[in-house]
Amino acid sequence: MAVDYDSKQYLEGVDKYWRAANYLSVGQLFLRDNPLLDRDLTSDDVKVKPIGHWGTIVSQTFIYAHLNRVINKYDLNMFYIEGSGHGGQVMVSNSYLDGSYSDIYPNISQDKEGLKKLFKQFSFPGGVASHAAPETPGSIHEGGELGYSLSHGTGAILDNPDVIAAVEIGDGEAETGPLAASWFSDKFINPIKDGAVLPIINMNGFKISNPTILSRMTDEELTNYFKGMGWNPKFVEVKDPDNHMPVHEAMAKTMDEAISEIKAIQKNARENNDNSLPNWPMIIFRSPKGWTGPKEDFDGNPVEGSFRAHQVPLPIAADSMEHADKLVSWLKSYKPEEIFNADGTLKQEVRDFAPKGDKRMSVNPITNGGIDPKPLKLPDYKDYAVKVTTPGATEAQDMIVWSDWVADTMKLNPDNFRAFGPDESKSNRLYSMLDHGKRQWEEDIHEPYDEDMAPQGRVIDSQLSEHQAEGWLEGYVLTGRHGFFATYESFGRVVDSMLTQHMKWLRKAAEQSWRNQYPSLNFVDTSTVFQQDHNGYTHQDPGMLTHLAEKKPEFIREYLPGDANTLLAVADVAFRSYEKINLLVTSKHPRPQWFSIDEATNLVHNGLGYIDWASTDQGQEPDIVFAAAGSEPTWEVFAAVSLLHDEFPEMKIRVINVVDILKLRSPKIDPRGLSDEEFDRYFTVDKPVIFAFHGFEDLVKDIFFDRHNHNLSVHGYRENGDITTPFDMRVLNELDRYHLAKDAVLNIPEYAVKGSYFAQRMDDMVAKHNAYIRENGTDLPEVNNWKWQPLK
Amino acid sequence: MAVDYDSKQYLEGVDKYWRAANYLSVGQLFLRDNPLLDRDLTSDDVKVKPIGHWGTIVSQTFIYAHLNRVINKYDLNMFYIEGSGHGGQVMVSNSYLDGSYSDIYPNISQDKEGLKKLFKQFSFPGGVASHAAPETPGSIHEGGELGYSLSHGTGAILDNPDVIAAVEIGDGEAETGPLAASWFSDKFINPIKDGAVLPIINMNGFKISNPTILSRMTDEELTNYFKGMGWNPKFVEVKDPDNHMPVHEAMAKTMDEAISEIKAIQKNARENNDNSLPNWPMIIFRSPKGWTGPKEDFDGNPVEGSFRAHQVPLPIAADSMEHADKLVSWLKSYKPEEIFNADGTLKQEVRDFAPKGDKRMSVNPITNGGIDPKPLKLPDYKDYAVKVTTPGATEAQDMIVWSDWVADTMKLNPDNFRAFGPDESKSNRLYSMLDHGKRQWEEDIHEPYDEDMAPQGRVIDSQLSEHQAEGWLEGYVLTGRHGFFATYESFGRVVDSMLTQHMKWLRKAAEQSWRNQYPSLNFVDTSTVFQQDHNGYTHQDPGMLTHLAEKKPEFIREYLPGDANTLLAVADVAFRSYEKINLLVTSKHPRPQWFSIDEATNLVHNGLGYIDWASTDQGQEPDIVFAAAGSEPTWEVFAAVSLLHDEFPEMKIRVINVVDILKLRSPKIDPRGLSDEEFDRYFTVDKPVIFAFHGFEDLVKDIFFDRHNHNLSVHGYRENGDITTPFDMRVLNELDRYHLAKDAVLNIPEYAVKGSYFAQRMDDMVAKHNAYIRENGTDLPEVNNWKWQPLK
Ligand SMILES: Cc1ncc(C[n+]2csc(CCOP(=O)(O)OP(=O)(O)O)c2C)c(N)n1
Ligand SMILES: Cc1ncc(C[n+]2csc(CCOP(=O)(O)OP(=O)(O)O)c2C)c(N)n1
Ligand SMILES: [Mg+2]
Ligand SMILES: [Mg+2]
Repeated sequence: MAVDYDSKQYLEGVDKYWRAANYLSVGQLFLRDNPLLDRDLTSDDVKVKPIGHWGTIVSQTFIYAHLNRVINKYDLNMFYIEGSGHGGQVMVSNSYLDGSYSDIYPNISQDKEGLKKLFKQFSFPGGVASHAAPETPGSIHEGGELGYSLSHGTGAILDNPDVIAAVEIGDGEAETGPLAASWFSDKFINPIKDGAVLPIINMNGFKISNPTILSRMTDEELTNYFKGMGWNPKFVEVKDPDNHMPVHEAMAKTMDEAISEIKAIQKNARENNDNSLPNWPMIIFRSPKGWTGPKEDFDGNPVEGSFRAHQVPLPIAADSMEHADKLVSWLKSYKPEEIFNADGTLKQEVRDFAPKGDKRMSVNPITNGGIDPKPLKLPDYKDYAVKVTTPGATEAQDMIVWSDWVADTMKLNPDNFRAFGPDESKSNRLYSMLDHGKRQWEEDIHEPYDEDMAPQGRVIDSQLSEHQAEGWLEGYVLTGRHGFFATYESFGRVVDSMLTQHMKWLRKAAEQSWRNQYPSLNFVDTSTVFQQDHNGYTHQDPGMLTHLAEKKPEFIREYLPGDANTLLAVADVAFRSYEKINLLVTSKHPRPQWFSIDEATNLVHNGLGYIDWASTDQGQEPDIVFAAAGSEPTWEVFAAVSLLHDEFPEMKIRVINVVDILKLRSPKIDPRGLSDEEFDRYFTVDKPVIFAFHGFEDLVKDIFFDRHNHNLSVHGYRENGDITTPFDMRVLNELDRYHLAKDAVLNIPEYAVKGSYFAQRMDDMVAKHNAYIRENGTDLPEVNNWKWQPLK
Repeated sequence: MAVDYDSKQYLEGVDKYWRAANYLSVGQLFLRDNPLLDRDLTSDDVKVKPIGHWGTIVSQTFIYAHLNRVINKYDLNMFYIEGSGHGGQVMVSNSYLDGSYSDIYPNISQDKEGLKKLFKQFSFPGGVASHAAPETPGSIHEGGELGYSLSHGTGAILDNPDVIAAVEIGDGEAETGPLAASWFSDKFINPIKDGAVLPIINMNGFKISNPTILSRMTDEELTNYFKGMGWNPKFVEVKDPDNHMPVHEAMAKTMDEAISEIKAIQKNARENNDNSLPNWPMIIFRSPKGWTGPKEDFDGNPVEGSFRAHQVPLPIAADSMEHADKLVSWLKSYKPEEIFNADGTLKQEVRDFAPKGDKRMSVNPITNGGIDPKPLKLPDYKDYAVKVTTPGATEAQDMIVWSDWVADTMKLNPDNFRAFGPDESKSNRLYSMLDHGKRQWEEDIHEPYDEDMAPQGRVIDSQLSEHQAEGWLEGYVLTGRHGFFATYESFGRVVDSMLTQHMKWLRKAAEQSWRNQYPSLNFVDTSTVFQQDHNGYTHQDPGMLTHLAEKKPEFIREYLPGDANTLLAVADVAFRSYEKINLLVTSKHPRPQWFSIDEATNLVHNGLGYIDWASTDQGQEPDIVFAAAGSEPTWEVFAAVSLLHDEFPEMKIRVINVVDILKLRSPKIDPRGLSDEEFDRYFTVDKPVIFAFHGFEDLVKDIFFDRHNHNLSVHGYRENGDITTPFDMRVLNELDRYHLAKDAVLNIPEYAVKGSYFAQRMDDMVAKHNAYIRENGTDLPEVNNWKWQPLK
């Protein structure tokens, strides 16, 4: 017998399911025992310190129940993103109701004992988070830091044409920058090749202790706002908080409309090969914050419909039981007797209402790390190598070389590999990638004014927003696909906190055996501090290196390839990896090429290496150790070695190139770190080390602090910047050959006297440089024309 | 004779002024000599490496000229914000034209020689930035990192009722998160007490190499978008790029409308005491990117009206002179002969067109650090002190205590002190501040559902956006007023990069003697990593400390007050200071109070201090040094000392409390740093130091690396978090008393044997704790009830 999803009876089923979710959610907030209230509530039944959020819950469980309805009605492939992630109970309760929670966590069984544990564990030490965290089935988005729900949802449905992301968005969340910009996601969703997002604003009027801006806008203003951005908004409103059936009817009707529109858009696009930009539906759900909860607090202030509903709305706890009756009547208002059997199992009709199998949003396959994430097919990076026979003889642009490999990676993986960026792919020299992959853009294309755009591109870089590029990429990799974000180094820091949150997700998700492994998130910092052509001091910040180095070592890699071949070898490792944030700091400018592809491969696989052709200490203890990490540091160290060797052929110099900087850390800090013995073999226990580093110097000092050799002089970025010549950026930070060479002689005791003339000569060169660039606007010929000469 | 600002003749004057600005802007991009083109252009006249941006210029100079017109016509007090800051020439050219540039930089004189220098210095080593940088007269906003123009403009006009901020916004910039959220600034501008912003979107259709999203929206969509948010958008469009007079007419008319509407809104509000929310005007200016520049590049691709106009649009340079004729004809198209006299001085009518004196946007007094920034009047913080006679006997909430002082500061400074935040002031316990100051909110107020809101509040925390709170505060302090931003510690990191940019601004501005000093930007991190009640791992990140510590020391202070009195004393120092970013890391939870107000004052003024009542090493070399920085570290160190002293009364323990963490740095790194002698006096040269630190540990290791004593064991945040009890957060990171006490005995060689039983007892306590919290959800009674006992 066909189910009538629009019947009053069916909507009563929706209502019951909703009440079940509400009951479970309140129980999780307050109870540790007596989950069915089948005896009087005592202090032992209530948590000592109830912790969590209430205000967002019921409007979400309402949305969720109605999403279940349309999944059942239309057999949808849908999953849920909880934008205001702090109502962690919503997804837990629903996963418990649909059975998946007990499947994944068998100790939380479908009976009274299971209920008790379900309640107790929530927001409890050793238990589960108060947010939609990695341990929450069906979640790809924790929502702890608000603002990324819609970009995550959009990232997830790219190249997943059958999937709909139902994205719940807090009306407070909608005030954040990232969320406000993410409405423009609609401009990038291809109706043929991608799936759909259905944004649903949980317009409950309040945030922590303020009303929300959007909720005080009229329906007309909201319609204008969203229509302006290309959405088709639909309203559902709770007019009387105590009369639920009219809202069920309105929501059912509106959801039906939204789903029908999505299907119509996709059908038209797919049948008529019509890539043009549609107006996707969205829903604005006006409801009182803390709906169905306590109307007032014990001082008579309103709670339902007010900001006061945000967290725990009544101060009831094991040692504050005076008003426990209010909790009981609140819980009983959901009619648990209609939901549970006496043994705590769910009534069959409640159970039946949930979608089945993979159709349950809690186990939608893409939400658990993707559908068996396919490894990337990678072309052999060695085929793209720059031919390096004499070190430094050839010049190339690392990003241009790399781009060819990226373009071919796109060819090999036409639907699970993407590049993202904030309007910088071309500036970052990914020419061949753009040429092959094209930018995805659904608006009209005006060639020749526009370039490299197509409705079904593989690159999305046409919104100037680091938040969007990062959010989309996160959504993409969290659903099992691969990709990278290339950005100007300094503006990568716009998303510092997003990377922190992603790391936190990876870490907690790694503890969940039922989650698939995530492909790594690759973050390519280019247009770096040490060469800014059209920009200046504002564009100079290499601090992402320190920022990520502070995170859990297991999930972070930082690579500083010194040339194009090293970059190729690095990318091959990074793109094959899982569960990491890989930071690649690369150069896009013409640079001498140093390493053959085999040398480069070894450097990457060891993380670092002696550069024998630039060293003069073979088989002996060196007088001085030079280490370089990064493109310009590598270059300047070689140049400094030349200067020194010309002057002091007897000086025993060791040159080390470091690609994988975090491998230098002590194994006490980082399990991958070199042992002290290995470290000492490279850096000696007491010889002076001149470390030329791309980033801030504290990172290197921190590394050496845990090692024997503290005879260290770091030359990194010293926050000295300007619009100036490329070489001057190095001089300003004393990372240039002259400062490095001078520092070497000053640090070797035996050269205290015999090096002093040389040291002055280095100072003179710096002075000459300073005068020259101010006159000519370009670097000294001896700097620009310098080439590595094999050591005598 | 009255000027007819609407006459054709006047508009021709506008046109001429505009051409003058364009000529100067192209000159700056390409030339180093021959500024009047009064002889043939040679390679010596052209820069070796022309660098900068072109595409944004001419639409901006057009806007600027028309702003000058309305300043003249209506006698406005207006200044300019260049959102797409990378057209640095715009403001330089205009400042040169109005004479202020030569006033400020007399070497850039108003003659041929001055012109030559003006051209040469632009985007040149030792010269001026390619952005609207601190050296640019009239700028408060560099725009290097895009997205903050409107929040800066809004911050600047708060409490400046007569000022209008004309905010040019790039259509690419408008795609960023921060900018998209900043449209909601209109909801917070009070028409009586605040001034106005006039946003002008420079809708030139393109960004670096992409079209923009907004420009491809129809006028109707744009109208909807902006009307929805409460703006009243007006369009001006360049229909024929070669026919300028119709655009002048349209822009003049539209500007007149906009200014009249602003005046009408303010008049009505001020005469009728009508605080209600108006619909402020804004302008959308559609023009071709690179307007009036080269039509095509040398390959025949369109430049004007395309992304190709973004940077230097033609590859002409000293060594690429083949097409130099194109540059000459381009420059000549602006008819320099109508602009300059033969000696390079400006023709009188061009000069006359500029507004006069302070009416020039380049010298609007608020843009140079405010109108003689008034110091804050501060109440005596000692009057707010918690009475501490026995250390640890009293409990208080630092933020609640502090709030009273803040509220009174608001009373004393009713129109130049404000608090900002992302919906967290109440959660951060600033109760009395909200009660007195109220939140500024122009929408309807629905009490009792809303709380502490008023149209003329002193707090703005009703938009959930860290970007907005930070951007407004920056605008406010950059125009000479005072304030702070209080935020959840972890989400402070959402604006990492904004703080970097602010520091960069401060640094470069400090080099400009003509700029007033800026009041400091106070950043209050509360709801910290070590106590999260309703939230968990996502809310735990103390990395702002490392982030800011990497910046230029002169401009950064980091304070970690251990209790309420210390916080009061810190705030007194921070709020009096200038030209700093002050980071205050504070606790909002009930905490034992340790220091009398005099002790606290000394700690703050010295930066750190021995705590004699917790030390047992008086007059002797200690066995162990404990250092604490931060609220929970301070607490745990005292508790660890108790444990140790009870067990080992003979152990010579030294306790140091550190408030001003960066003072520990070596003077080699930080001019304020303790000398090595002073440092050694506190920390000894070789005794074990157990450092309990609120932040990531690398910061402390970096500090000690430059010191003698490397016998250091840091206990900081180890990126171990969860939703758990407050004490467990410390246990997870080994920052609790048990781990600290154990580490002490393990680190004193003499206790290797006699301490082992004790060490195991500490392990046992940790095990007991772990079991207890998992069962009870709250901390051990011996932890919760622990009180400091005077040492025997
Ligand atoms: C970026 C960020 N800033 C601040 C917070 C602190 N915070 C947690 S919940 C909340 C209010 C959320 O309101 P809304 O999005 O409307 O969610 P609701 O609970 O009303 O559904 C805030 C400000 C946060 N989580 N993230
Ligand atoms: C946050 C940020 N991301 C990226 C950039 C790099 N960038 C510099 S200019 C630009 C395009 C700006 O376009 P638009 O705002 O339209 O300015 P226009 O030059 O067209 O006036 C970009 C992406 C930046 N400056 N800031
Ligand atoms: Mg809300
Ligand atoms: Mg533009």
